[in-house]
Amino acid sequence: MSEFQKLTRADLDYFSRLLPGRVFTGEAISTDYDHDEMTEYGHYMPEAVLQALSAEDVSQVLRYCNERHIAVTPRGAGTGLCGGCVAIHGGVVLSTEKMKKVLEVDTRNMTATVEPGVLLMEFPKYLEGTGLFYPPDPGEKTATMGGNAMTNAGGMRAVRYGVTRDYILGMQVVLADGSIIELGGKNVKTSSGYSLIDLMIGSEGTLGFLTRLMVKLVPEPKVNLSLLIPFDDLDACISAVPQVLACGCDPTAVEFMEREVITCAEEYLGKQFPDTSADAYLLVRLDGASTEALQPAVSAVTDLVLSIGARDVLLADTDERKESIWTARGAFLEAIKGSTPTMDECDVVVPRDSIPAFVHRSVEISRETGVRIRSFGHAGDGNLHIYACRDDMDEETWKKAVAEVMRKLYEAAAEMHGAVSGEHGIGHAKKAFLAESVGPRQMELMRAIKAAFDPNGILNPGKVVS
Amino acid sequence: MSEFQKLTRADLDYFSRLLPGRVFTGEAISTDYDHDEMTEYGHYMPEAVLQALSAEDVSQVLRYCNERHIAVTPRGAGTGLCGGCVAIHGGVVLSTEKMKKVLEVDTRNMTATVEPGVLLMEFPKYLEGTGLFYPPDPGEKTATMGGNAMTNAGGMRAVRYGVTRDYILGMQVVLADGSIIELGGKNVKTSSGYSLIDLMIGSEGTLGFLTRLMVKLVPEPKVNLSLLIPFDDLDACISAVPQVLACGCDPTAVEFMEREVITCAEEYLGKQFPDTSADAYLLVRLDGASTEALQPAVSAVTDLVLSIGARDVLLADTDERKESIWTARGAFLEAIKGSTPTMDECDVVVPRDSIPAFVHRSVEISRETGVRIRSFGHAGDGNLHIYACRDDMDEETWKKAVAEVMRKLYEAAAEMHGAVSGEHGIGHAKKAFLAESVGPRQMELMRAIKAAFDPNGILNPGKVVS
Repeated sequence: MSEFQKLTRADLDYFSRLLPGRVFTGEAISTDYDHDEMTEYGHYMPEAVLQALSAEDVSQVLRYCNERHIAVTPRGAGTGLCGGCVAIHGGVVLSTEKMKKVLEVDTRNMTATVEPGVLLMEFPKYLEGTGLFYPPDPGEKTATMGGNAMTNAGGMRAVRYGVTRDYILGMQVVLADGSIIELGGKNVKTSSGYSLIDLMIGSEGTLGFLTRLMVKLVPEPKVNLSLLIPFDDLDACISAVPQVLACGCDPTAVEFMEREVITCAEEYLGKQFPDTSADAYLLVRLDGASTEALQPAVSAVTDLVLSIGARDVLLADTDERKESIWTARGAFLEAIKGSTPTMDECDVVVPRDSIPAFVHRSVEISRETGVRIRSFGHAGDGNLHIYACRDDMDEETWKKAVAEVMRKLYEAAAEMHGAVSGEHGIGHAKKAFLAESVGPRQMELMRAIKAAFDPNGILNPGKVVS
Repeated sequence: MSEFQKLTRADLDYFSRLLPGRVFTGEAISTDYDHDEMTEYGHYMPEAVLQALSAEDVSQVLRYCNERHIAVTPRGAGTGLCGGCVAIHGGVVLSTEKMKKVLEVDTRNMTATVEPGVLLMEFPKYLEGTGLFYPPDPGEKTATMGGNAMTNAGGMRAVRYGVTRDYILGMQVVLADGSIIELGGKNVKTSSGYSLIDLMIGSEGTLGFLTRLMVKLVPEPKVNLSLLIPFDDLDACISAVPQVLACGCDPTAVEFMEREVITCAEEYLGKQFPDTSADAYLLVRLDGASTEALQPAVSAVTDLVLSIGARDVLLADTDERKESIWTARGAFLEAIKGSTPTMDECDVVVPRDSIPAFVHRSVEISRETGVRIRSFGHAGDGNLHIYACRDDMDEETWKKAVAEVMRKLYEAAAEMHGAVSGEHGIGHAKKAFLAESVGPRQMELMRAIKAAFDPNGILNPGKVVS
């Protein structure tokens, strides 16, 4: 920590001249800035919050901080789940919240160019009438597109459409020394040297500061429908996933959910879910050109799941029915969060055929540790969101118990050749688990890359590898 | 060049003990090893050719060569087009041609694990009966899957399915110091630190030596059909591409071809193409669950192209008709090659809406320089293959003329914000164009990455960035 300089009056004067009205210190900093969505990982107040309006602003701030060894923590909407945008080494938080222009929608090349602060929920309205859409669909719609890019966010539609990485064509990035580089562009393929853009995606602001993003758009499917499939138990439910994926139905989303999580969401939303009679449900979404065109896929899934133990197949093809299901699904995280004073989470991804075994193991771990565990997730891509709830545990018991839970969960994931994070990232909260998972040689390579991009280590220090 | 040690008797003895019967020197080295598919880029005979059978072999060779500063050039089937697998600094060629086992086909997780030397043309037979297929489809079927990974090869089906990068889930890589690392795995998504696997893909063997590959498989489409669409001229033909892509037909491939190239392929193959009455053709391939399911897409494309100047739409839905078209398409490169003593090629990718302008410009450049130019390519993804044919030019005239052609082509691509290579890579032949295209700051980053992975610079020296 001592390697970074504390801000001086002179530093603040410089920033104030550079960013008039956009420099905040002391009481003027909202306490929102001292954490992300996981308060469990601590509160760290930055010495100043700076709001950038342009790449030039970012360049000047970085050049200045790089020369003076001032820590810079990039921040979008602050909706992360691993402490990635929190200033754990003090210094400045450099925020993109005012950089929220959609700069271009190019229907001929099917691309859009946006500033990093555009919110995921705001973007679709810029595409209205174009017949195009942006497939990545992380649950947190108030996240920024820049934040999504820098964590390689996933989301519900990843089974069919892939994750954020698959939709990023270009980036403008400011390096630690203030130089501005342009990576990629409107070309849809390239074999032109090392893929710096792929290195930047998911780097959580530790290699460069994202100031512009170019994304790929695809033709919007004309219709979609969802199948809610009740099963007697979680095992039968989750064991069906590989077969659903292989039946040729090309699903957009395959989510699993347990009754406890659904009723928790019902209470949180004050709204009824269409069915809560079963222990566990698969939720399958299909996209297509027309309802008729989707019929073969609907039949394939229906025939399959009924032959392997599903109780029923509930078709949601009206807006109302679809909304009641997907709104509940979207509220799971907040609902679980509302049910406990604090919680910790684990976002491992395992091979798809290991999901039943992993979910099994998480139930055992709950029993072994006495910690209430709730889970849901992207069954179709092997990515589980597992929440350890503190409930009424005292601080000491909780800290010990949750450490035990996490140790056991990551151990189980490692045995199944899983990875530490499917879509939330590493931040500072999961660094130790990453190091254990990939081993010393890969950590060494990652640190060498970090040093190549940011020799003074000013960019988002204490995150991912440093 | 002087930085590398020449092989000594002692070195060869060491290799012979390590790889009995798999070390070749002098006359025992086939002249095939002194070039790839582009003889235009020179002939370089390695001091020895070593055949590896395992990661352990590779690890021992690299550790030895790293300590002694011996250049190591990785090589698969040698089908590259930019001199990437040619030992321009001497030393050893380390070949994967004997590492060609398909180690696993995992139908539940829809993955396959292969050794790097498996040929693209051999792989499908291992998937027979699984209902799964591997979408990347580069024209050169005698290439290795490892070579495809290390150049991020593209191919015909990239429009719908993406390129090789999109299908690589895991890699076993031997680093320059001999350490063996495992990147990725059966997990279909991850946000777990810097994407070393994405850095390795397309690095052309300069960052590590690939010894095992895990790829993603997808359900095989049940039917496919192709539409051959004649146009009066190339402009009308290629201008239709963005609209075809936007019409919602989700094409697998969109290729363009000119009559001259088709007749050249007819002569080469001794086979008739279904139609050569028009100046230019679009070839659109559609994949789907059934012929009926494809009808809306066929209608959408047909209605569209007839409304914007197509002469006709020829449906190829029989195996015979499809084969006659796609065999011709697959023979374009060889046919052009057979029509001239030597040639140079340019594999730029430009934004899709710039293809007409780029093709236009290439015709002008041919006129300006007097060099015969033939082109074809992946219109659907903006990737053009442009061949400058020497024909009967003398050496001096040709060298001057072709340099001029290439300078002008890359200049035009740069003006359109294109990239140097869409799918063939950089090798040693396109290094200068890469440097010019991405600029000094990005080259500096790439060189720093190279130094982090391979401090002594022994891995494929003289390629991409070094």
